[in-house]
Amino acid sequence: MAERSHECRERCYGIIQKRLPVLKWLPKYSLQWLQLDLVAGLTVGLTVVPQALAYAALAGLPVQYGLYSSFMGCFVYCLLGTSKDVTLGPTAIMSLLVSSYAFHDPSYAILLTFLSGCIQLAMGLLHLGFLLDFISYPVIKGFTSAAAVTIGFNQVKTLLGLQNIPRQFILQVYYTFCRIGETRVADAVLGLFCLTALTGLQQMKESIPKANRMEPLSVRISQLVVWTTATVRNALVVLFAGLVAYSFQVTGSQPFTLTGVTPQGLPSFQLPPFSEVTPNGTISFGGMVQKMGAGLAVVPLMGLLETVAIAKAFASQNNYQIDPNQELLAMGFTNFLGSFISSFPVTGSFGRTAVNAQTGVCTPAGGLITGVLVLLSLAFLTSVFFYIPKAALAAVIICAVAPMFDARIFYTLWQVKRLDLVPLCVTFFFCFWEVQYGIIAGVLVSGILLLYPIARPRIKVLEHEQETLFIQPAGGLYFPAIEFLRDTVRKRTQSESRLCNIILDCTHVSSIDYTAVLGLSELLQELQHRKLSLVFIGLQTQVLQVFLAAGLEGFHHFPNLKDAEKSLEEELSHVGEALLDGSDSILPTSGIIQ
Amino acid sequence: MAERSHECRERCYGIIQKRLPVLKWLPKYSLQWLQLDLVAGLTVGLTVVPQALAYAALAGLPVQYGLYSSFMGCFVYCLLGTSKDVTLGPTAIMSLLVSSYAFHDPSYAILLTFLSGCIQLAMGLLHLGFLLDFISYPVIKGFTSAAAVTIGFNQVKTLLGLQNIPRQFILQVYYTFCRIGETRVADAVLGLFCLTALTGLQQMKESIPKANRMEPLSVRISQLVVWTTATVRNALVVLFAGLVAYSFQVTGSQPFTLTGVTPQGLPSFQLPPFSEVTPNGTISFGGMVQKMGAGLAVVPLMGLLETVAIAKAFASQNNYQIDPNQELLAMGFTNFLGSFISSFPVTGSFGRTAVNAQTGVCTPAGGLITGVLVLLSLAFLTSVFFYIPKAALAAVIICAVAPMFDARIFYTLWQVKRLDLVPLCVTFFFCFWEVQYGIIAGVLVSGILLLYPIARPRIKVLEHEQETLFIQPAGGLYFPAIEFLRDTVRKRTQSESRLCNIILDCTHVSSIDYTAVLGLSELLQELQHRKLSLVFIGLQTQVLQVFLAAGLEGFHHFPNLKDAEKSLEEELSHVGEALLDGSDSILPTSGIIQ
Repeated sequence: MAERSHECRERCYGIIQKRLPVLKWLPKYSLQWLQLDLVAGLTVGLTVVPQALAYAALAGLPVQYGLYSSFMGCFVYCLLGTSKDVTLGPTAIMSLLVSSYAFHDPSYAILLTFLSGCIQLAMGLLHLGFLLDFISYPVIKGFTSAAAVTIGFNQVKTLLGLQNIPRQFILQVYYTFCRIGETRVADAVLGLFCLTALTGLQQMKESIPKANRMEPLSVRISQLVVWTTATVRNALVVLFAGLVAYSFQVTGSQPFTLTGVTPQGLPSFQLPPFSEVTPNGTISFGGMVQKMGAGLAVVPLMGLLETVAIAKAFASQNNYQIDPNQELLAMGFTNFLGSFISSFPVTGSFGRTAVNAQTGVCTPAGGLITGVLVLLSLAFLTSVFFYIPKAALAAVIICAVAPMFDARIFYTLWQVKRLDLVPLCVTFFFCFWEVQYGIIAGVLVSGILLLYPIARPRIKVLEHEQETLFIQPAGGLYFPAIEFLRDTVRKRTQSESRLCNIILDCTHVSSIDYTAVLGLSELLQELQHRKLSLVFIGLQTQVLQVFLAAGLEGFHHFPNLKDAEKSLEEELSHVGEALLDGSDSILPTSGIIQ
Repeated sequence: MAERSHECRERCYGIIQKRLPVLKWLPKYSLQWLQLDLVAGLTVGLTVVPQALAYAALAGLPVQYGLYSSFMGCFVYCLLGTSKDVTLGPTAIMSLLVSSYAFHDPSYAILLTFLSGCIQLAMGLLHLGFLLDFISYPVIKGFTSAAAVTIGFNQVKTLLGLQNIPRQFILQVYYTFCRIGETRVADAVLGLFCLTALTGLQQMKESIPKANRMEPLSVRISQLVVWTTATVRNALVVLFAGLVAYSFQVTGSQPFTLTGVTPQGLPSFQLPPFSEVTPNGTISFGGMVQKMGAGLAVVPLMGLLETVAIAKAFASQNNYQIDPNQELLAMGFTNFLGSFISSFPVTGSFGRTAVNAQTGVCTPAGGLITGVLVLLSLAFLTSVFFYIPKAALAAVIICAVAPMFDARIFYTLWQVKRLDLVPLCVTFFFCFWEVQYGIIAGVLVSGILLLYPIARPRIKVLEHEQETLFIQPAGGLYFPAIEFLRDTVRKRTQSESRLCNIILDCTHVSSIDYTAVLGLSELLQELQHRKLSLVFIGLQTQVLQVFLAAGLEGFHHFPNLKDAEKSLEEELSHVGEALLDGSDSILPTSGIIQ
């Protein structure tokens, strides 16, 4: 009795642990872990603050919304996340999607966060994580590469200080080149300098040799300095640019486009806006939802895709397991709660997750430090953000998205599997039209490529003893294939006039649907009209049941070819005798022979 | 030489005949055919005129547009059609779609016709008729049943003379019941009378015994009178209702809602409107196209679906063949040319095709008579249309769509194949939201049902000699299945700690995509981390080529199980010796054993 209750308690605890993964690592937490988590959390924090400002601008929202979006994920993921490395927060792709679906209006962005959170939670509870299986690698690559180009180019106008450039990519390229003469020199110089500095620091980081305990202390310290500088490069560059702008401000002139006034303090905790008052009247919840349209499917799914893809990549690299449905719940909760503190939709960030992993984070507790850092900057630093030049933030974004563009994939697919270039190219090019169309088109095209073998199965056609046609579909028999099968039969029976028996071998057919049964029933009738017989052999039990339930007129089936042939021969001789007798009433109504 | 040129001429003529099917029947045309075609053409004409007026109202356009849409199809189909029975023209479903996508504005309707025609022509030239294969029977049934309910209910408000009822189905039901008190008694009485008359005449027609030459002449004549009356019932009922309304008009009072003034004369031949001038400024071609959105896919596809479904049904009944791509061309041309004479999109009409077939039409020439009749009524009868009560037209539509509702299909699918109820119900219920969503959702759901076996293939898992896991996927290995395969391997290797070799048998894998290769490559690395070995056997040539081109790290393959086991055993004993020697450098980097 006691044993059983113990067992039950164990199982309950297992379930709770599965849903609250923090319980797995917290009891084992040690001082050494704390040390490493602290460093990682600080480093990620120094990356997320400048990125948050930049991504808010990319999403078309005031900069403080970037910071509002950056801390909830840290706290929630610490409790619910299954990967030690992943950090949730604003990302370039999500900001791009928000800029499409929130119409540069915080109310829409926050409502989108709330609804995305609810949808992700529902998907997590319904175990819909498997939907990701239908997004193939070429579609992901096509999408991320196109997004990198779109986002990167989107920042060129900010880097050059151009104003009033349209949002649509093609128009953006056109107008940016048209109005390149209006470039603000100071913005362009500063922007390019920041870009160069960021690229240089990144290169430096990559070329640092791996730390080796054998080397003298001085070498190791200098390596550490370089590594730290390079890792927090975003914060350093933005800080430097801000100082430059501040110096100009003090001297009385300001050549740069600045971030401007940012409201100080933490966001208030309030319900997300379920309706919006505009000068033209109130827009109801339904109206807002309708306006966001496909965004309500694209944003939650892309959020999920980014998080799970990143979690899987780092789990595989660092050799641990993640649970996609639990990730979905973690992200859903983050967005759901985030919408109460004016966050826009967040997801896993590849760049910051990499920083987190490289600084040697041990548990999701590192996120707590990051979150606190973001809260502190909201509380005390917003007045400083006034001086950050927009061009510097643009440089941060360009450097963040550049590695997402992967030109090699085109070559790789050409070498390995050319057919996969189709979904890749479709996704890539449609994404320049509208991101969501690219993803939808890519998924549809890869779906069609999957369905092709179902719609056009290999059908073995043999002529057997002159007057019998033997037909055997290689795989299942589903509705898209039925017209094709009928055409095959039709063509053969029309070209070979001496054929009079058709045997359909369903040995490989493990399942059949109603449309296919109906098509076969029509084929049966058509052949009866033409005085040809059609018999079925090798029907598996569940397929036979469907045929019998459908009650096909003139349906004959036999276990195997031998029985079918024997029966057909008997009928033949039977009819032969009947014809000799001069009577034709013996012919079955289904017209077994011509 | 002469023989060859003769052969070439023959072949050319064959191709021309295929594209201009009129050449097949015209040379054989006889006086007897003319007689039957004449009767059929007249009968269809007497059906199409009242229906055209009613469908124009359903489409939300002035009534003359129904007639404008009714004659081009007759002429074009006579030249290009491959079925003797099909008649093209306005239909209930197409009118419903037009009312969704043309916003009750003739300019949009005509542009939609033009673009649908172009799309259908392009589809015909590209032989895209096969796309119809992906619309399964449950989706078609769900759509037509829902459309019948929607259209039928849509007419209730007209039948009762209610005004200002919203278009959306749910709201329509709600408001119709709310405001049933505002019913105009005269409209309701006349409408219900027409409905009863039409239903009664239809019942009469169905109960006429088949004509029998043995019966006395008087019986045969009376049967003919009843049959004719019942067949042209639409025209008779509308005529009667018009006469009643006219009598009231003469006496000075008018209790009915009338059709009102209809512009006289034939439509002018002019370019379709490629832009529109509104009080708020000009809407460009791009703006109009964007506003119609999904309609540009739904309208051409549904048009094609209706025509081909009807053509196939009658071809099978009357035992002839049709060519779906040629039907597509015929309909594309009809819509393309129709847009120059202010037609809205047309397609094959089931009701009128049935009338055509029943009156014994012999060739598509019957359509010529129908077309001339429509032109004559446009030229001379429009002043008479003023007096047609709208309630009578509503009754015509309700009787036309009632047979489209098929409640039995729910029961049939429950009996035969319950899984097919899913796409049926999804289509049926989504259609009440918006018709296009219903069709799209239905096609997607049936696509997912098709993809399920690809995403979750049966995988045979056997343990072999204690330490070897043998895994064999039953079908192909495509990207949606790869995560599932990895999970299967992961679970088995985690639960059975003594396993150290995994053999993946790809005998049944005839094709593989890049995502799947990448997934296997990641699995390979993951297993190497865990010191497990994975080898492939039974790779077909084309699959092996993909693997080799991808250059997987640690990829080992063998022709069959025996070779694989032999090699694994050798490595085992090899390692055993190495361990005895106290050296571990002999272990391959891929870590063949634990």
